[in-house]
Amino acid sequence: MLDEFYIEKLIKKKFPLKHSFFPTGIGDDAAIVKTNSNKLVISCDSQVEGVHFDLDYFTPEEIAFRSVSVALSDLSAMGAKPKFFSNSLFIPKNINASFLNKLFNGFKKVCKFYNIYLLGGNVSKSKSLILDLTVIGEVVGKSYKERLNSKKNDFIYVSGNIGDASRGLNILKNKRTFSSPEKRLISKYKSPKAKVDLGIFLGQLKDVTSMIDITDGLALDLGRLIGPKTGGKGATIVWEDIPKSINHTESLSSKKLMKSVLNGGDDYELLFTVKNSKVANFEKLCKKNNFKVYRIGFVNSLGHLSLVKGGKVSNLEANGFIHKF
Amino acid sequence: MLDEFYIEKLIKKKFPLKHSFFPTGIGDDAAIVKTNSNKLVISCDSQVEGVHFDLDYFTPEEIAFRSVSVALSDLSAMGAKPKFFSNSLFIPKNINASFLNKLFNGFKKVCKFYNIYLLGGNVSKSKSLILDLTVIGEVVGKSYKERLNSKKNDFIYVSGNIGDASRGLNILKNKRTFSSPEKRLISKYKSPKAKVDLGIFLGQLKDVTSMIDITDGLALDLGRLIGPKTGGKGATIVWEDIPKSINHTESLSSKKLMKSVLNGGDDYELLFTVKNSKVANFEKLCKKNNFKVYRIGFVNSLGHLSLVKGGKVSNLEANGFIHKF
Repeated sequence: MLDEFYIEKLIKKKFPLKHSFFPTGIGDDAAIVKTNSNKLVISCDSQVEGVHFDLDYFTPEEIAFRSVSVALSDLSAMGAKPKFFSNSLFIPKNINASFLNKLFNGFKKVCKFYNIYLLGGNVSKSKSLILDLTVIGEVVGKSYKERLNSKKNDFIYVSGNIGDASRGLNILKNKRTFSSPEKRLISKYKSPKAKVDLGIFLGQLKDVTSMIDITDGLALDLGRLIGPKTGGKGATIVWEDIPKSINHTESLSSKKLMKSVLNGGDDYELLFTVKNSKVANFEKLCKKNNFKVYRIGFVNSLGHLSLVKGGKVSNLEANGFIHKF
Repeated sequence: MLDEFYIEKLIKKKFPLKHSFFPTGIGDDAAIVKTNSNKLVISCDSQVEGVHFDLDYFTPEEIAFRSVSVALSDLSAMGAKPKFFSNSLFIPKNINASFLNKLFNGFKKVCKFYNIYLLGGNVSKSKSLILDLTVIGEVVGKSYKERLNSKKNDFIYVSGNIGDASRGLNILKNKRTFSSPEKRLISKYKSPKAKVDLGIFLGQLKDVTSMIDITDGLALDLGRLIGPKTGGKGATIVWEDIPKSINHTESLSSKKLMKSVLNGGDDYELLFTVKNSKVANFEKLCKKNNFKVYRIGFVNSLGHLSLVKGGKVSNLEANGFIHKF
């Protein structure tokens, strides 16, 4: 019989350890944790079956791992160091004990990967499978990054290929067997990794003026980063400068490619701005620390987003994935 | 059009303030918060439509207020001071803007009531309405309470009437108009208050040996507090000593009353143990600080729970509300 006692036992068995900074372990009314800093960074993210993932494409392990990576990406976007997470689980009738075992194996794996700790959570019945994560990190030093703080002439950077995840999802939806390049795109969609080390590195640099992670598409999240609607600021990005997977560009028509790159989402790359006068020094520092970053445009005062492609300028609408109810 | 932009705007409008300990305000990738202590207390709790609440009985304001009270009750059970919460919202099709406005009015009200702050959250589509709360508090001083730490001969206490909430729910299910005493029982179900001040007070007393809040019924949570299955400990409680509402006892047959009191749940009263030799001093201290507490039994080494009623002893099964999937 699958009930909350079974699940509690399962979790305690898989996560048996107490630590000096987590003295209660899992299983009391609440978790007591000790932190090194009294400046915390907290974010929530949820994965809903049929909205964020499909049980046809994902194993339970993959769902668990991905849910945590995606949530941690928000901490990286602030430049924070992830420490703990809690997981509220909403379970529909079709989920069995074997599925739950695999799900918590995924949580165990992701804890090890990011060196973070599961604090506990909650279980409840529901009509579809939902994982709701709250991730908690610490500010490193005293410095963290927010959106909207960029200034005119700041340069805009991304941390890696854009559009790969969206293309991977398209392949998953339309094919049953996959080539090696296709598998790489699918993996970018199914197994994104939060850019934790890069986030902490950028979080400490005072010339990095603002930061966000790309969740809902480059265009939409660029709008959120720059804030053209509120501050009168704008941004111009250059199509040819946006890093894209080669497999990606080969296998897609130009219009489809543009849609994946500009509006695709799910990449979880960092998007950030750097003070114009400090760019040379910044790029040198990244190279020295083995972080790859890609300059794709600049902040201006045009009040809207624009795209330069083949030397031609066009308006860039801040479109992407938005939840509608 | 109800989409996540609308909801983000709504929340920012209702929760506009930044504070010295919440410098980012709501709306970035993650919330940055400063805490007074680096020992934190974290708990999750969710409210699922059709499982934890019914839209026929609750207004949106009541759902929001109750969801936070219920979650904070877990912090009180540790003796912690609540500070912040985040709220993940899962929204089905039938929810409109007016409903959401009222829901966030409820969150505003509950923030004021407990002097806590909404940090942010997440919104997603789903098949039924779900609120998933993560509450964060601070350990007061260095002291907090856990379950399972009681010793043989410790006395067992509760903080108020047991069974009222369950009886209130029964009335809600079976009637349309209510007498004043019935309204009081319904209010105990619909609008429980976390025992924050009492929790902090008890959390600081070293003679309070263990604590839990009564969520799923006195018998079930007594089992969780004492741990008869693991430690060989047991507990005996005395029926006549359990505080019950007078309206309650008048309106229910003995069997129904026992079920409400022993297995009913939803009371969110504190259940705790106090060192035998320190009981007189403890009760004096409570009186001096205007906290009402009720001694209902004691810890023993019988390895099971038992109930004394009318001088007769019977086994008390640790039954109550358990999620089954």
